Amino acid sequence: MNILDKIKSIWAIGRQHKMTAIGFDRARNIDDPQAFISKQIKQPIPNDSEILVKVLATSVNPVDTKMRAGYKAEGQFRILGFDAVGEVVKVGTEVSRFDVGDLVYYAGSQMKQGSNAAYQVVEADLVGHAPHNLSIAEISAMPLTSITAFEILHDAFGYDLEKESISNRSILIINGAGGVGSILIQLAKYIGLTVITTASRPESVAWVKSLGADFILDYHQDLVEQLQHIQYPKVDHVAILQSTDAYWPTVTQIIKPFGTIASIVETTAPIDMGPLKNIGAQFSWVFMFAKGNYHVDMLSQGMALEKIAVLLDKGELKTTLTKTYQGFTVENIRAATRTVEEGRTIGKVVVVYDDEK
Amino acid sequence: MNILDKIKSIWAIGRQHKMTAIGFDRARNIDDPQAFISKQIKQPIPNDSEILVKVLATSVNPVDTKMRAGYKAEGQFRILGFDAVGEVVKVGTEVSRFDVGDLVYYAGSQMKQGSNAAYQVVEADLVGHAPHNLSIAEISAMPLTSITAFEILHDAFGYDLEKESISNRSILIINGAGGVGSILIQLAKYIGLTVITTASRPESVAWVKSLGADFILDYHQDLVEQLQHIQYPKVDHVAILQSTDAYWPTVTQIIKPFGTIASIVETTAPIDMGPLKNIGAQFSWVFMFAKGNYHVDMLSQGMALEKIAVLLDKGELKTTLTKTYQGFTVENIRAATRTVEEGRTIGKVVVVYDDEK
Repeated sequence: MNILDKIKSIWAIGRQHKMTAIGFDRARNIDDPQAFISKQIKQPIPNDSEILVKVLATSVNPVDTKMRAGYKAEGQFRILGFDAVGEVVKVGTEVSRFDVGDLVYYAGSQMKQGSNAAYQVVEADLVGHAPHNLSIAEISAMPLTSITAFEILHDAFGYDLEKESISNRSILIINGAGGVGSILIQLAKYIGLTVITTASRPESVAWVKSLGADFILDYHQDLVEQLQHIQYPKVDHVAILQSTDAYWPTVTQIIKPFGTIASIVETTAPIDMGPLKNIGAQFSWVFMFAKGNYHVDMLSQGMALEKIAVLLDKGELKTTLTKTYQGFTVENIRAATRTVEEGRTIGKVVVVYDDEK
Repeated sequence: MNILDKIKSIWAIGRQHKMTAIGFDRARNIDDPQAFISKQIKQPIPNDSEILVKVLATSVNPVDTKMRAGYKAEGQFRILGFDAVGEVVKVGTEVSRFDVGDLVYYAGSQMKQGSNAAYQVVEADLVGHAPHNLSIAEISAMPLTSITAFEILHDAFGYDLEKESISNRSILIINGAGGVGSILIQLAKYIGLTVITTASRPESVAWVKSLGADFILDYHQDLVEQLQHIQYPKVDHVAILQSTDAYWPTVTQIIKPFGTIASIVETTAPIDMGPLKNIGAQFSWVFMFAKGNYHVDMLSQGMALEKIAVLLDKGELKTTLTKTYQGFTVENIRAATRTVEEGRTIGKVVVVYDDEK
């Protein structure tokens, strides 16, 4: 940045517009009136590699709840929200993939303020052009979970997102009805995997069936026996989207030699890696924020979103949206968050913002 | 196989030549006179994808000791030996990479009888042409450990074996002086990694230094402090070649975000995978027998050996041979095995066979 740009930038900060943001300044129970508060704060300014986005909708993920519960920086206003669809209103000098006016979607980074605000800055590499044929609400359900599902298939299992490129391979998805599971079922089917997923409540079973799951197991019953029953005693891949600790002994029992296991759920105790040692099987964590947090290969997430947008527009994938709150209000953010906190969410919960903020 | 071939094959079994093999029929202490016994048995016959090799030398690996200690098939004669250099004397009908008379080297498979025999059959895909400029003893030290080191760098860390293709990346090798460590140090240096290894006894320190290690840490002292001292507080890769359980807490502390960890040593208890979850770091087992045991991607091992042979011939790598026993006798197999069982082996221990068996 040259001197003139610096002066402009400082001047810009001085005359920054205000905006509404919904956040909190300490960990509080969801029912606490102060769990979320609305504030007028200065609009953020993008740096050279970032864009400024006018947010049109967000969705709530389990990570919002985890970050609020674990919040340590008491007194500092924190804005959550790790899904967004919005309109580009400013681009950094190094940004070439986006222009002002583009409709974009992204999950963003834990290192920055989130999308529960009228405007947000985000690293351009983490962003994709939004699909054209979906509503704002439908789009905002997708980014975080799509990136996670993509990284499970691509980074952990080594697959490209090519239609029916795989045959005679199977994946067991533990908890297919949640946010990540709902898109992972579809992406796995798209590339040609046989998809086996767990689901228990009738509405969950109906949901995963509608997404294309080939076999649906009841996680209240013995999974090993059910897999034998459907003639898949061992599977090529397992995606653990719930209770890694609880499912680990089963997973190591049913993974094929040279199979791969991915988990997005932290362990609360050590796990026995021994059963994988001599069978060439591998375990990987998938944590979609790691790339943004460490500025590693961020563009892979933007590229994943570009690809997902094409598949959504073509109808190869469908949105995982199941519930919409209309209006950017504290009560809607609270209600959407409460739904996710209660668990057992099917698909995704979205908050669509008002036009005026 | 047509009827005529079948008849020939049955006839061939009937008139099979005898050969000397050294093995055992139950787990016994190394000092037991029956720990190893010599027997005259029928020469094996290669199937269509195999070759028959006249073995000229073998070397002893920790896996020999583990397999003998854990032997369950009491009364059945078992031949160990998972390194061999020898001359091809017969090739299966599907084998195109080898001719009778070729000098070859390989580790082979746990599923078959080993190289402690005058003749051995082995899957051709697992075999490489031996280097030309090394002695039989020097060659026989290499296969199993070279394949393991190759799979650590290639399969677990994602590197091709290209000279100085990597810069500004570091590897910590825990136990660099042993069989795998001695070749891994050299291969890691060859591709351009900065190599940090542990070694403690003066002769081990001298050995790893001669192999090219950049930094040598004392594993009796705090590794974290020593890494800080040499200005590598975090490393890109860790190869655990000893006591995975014991080193795990240190390893998870000093691995960089998006770093990779490989281990060849089984755990005896669960390990805490938690510290890797949010930093994009990955852990892989490397067990070189898995491919042969499950007939997965076996040719990758033959190809690795072809490449290693070229590097040995060019002097880019040196043999890790440190001790040679001359003569295919029970006492030499016992003595070589005892050396490995006692641990603290520097480099590799080899038994060169007599010409007449």
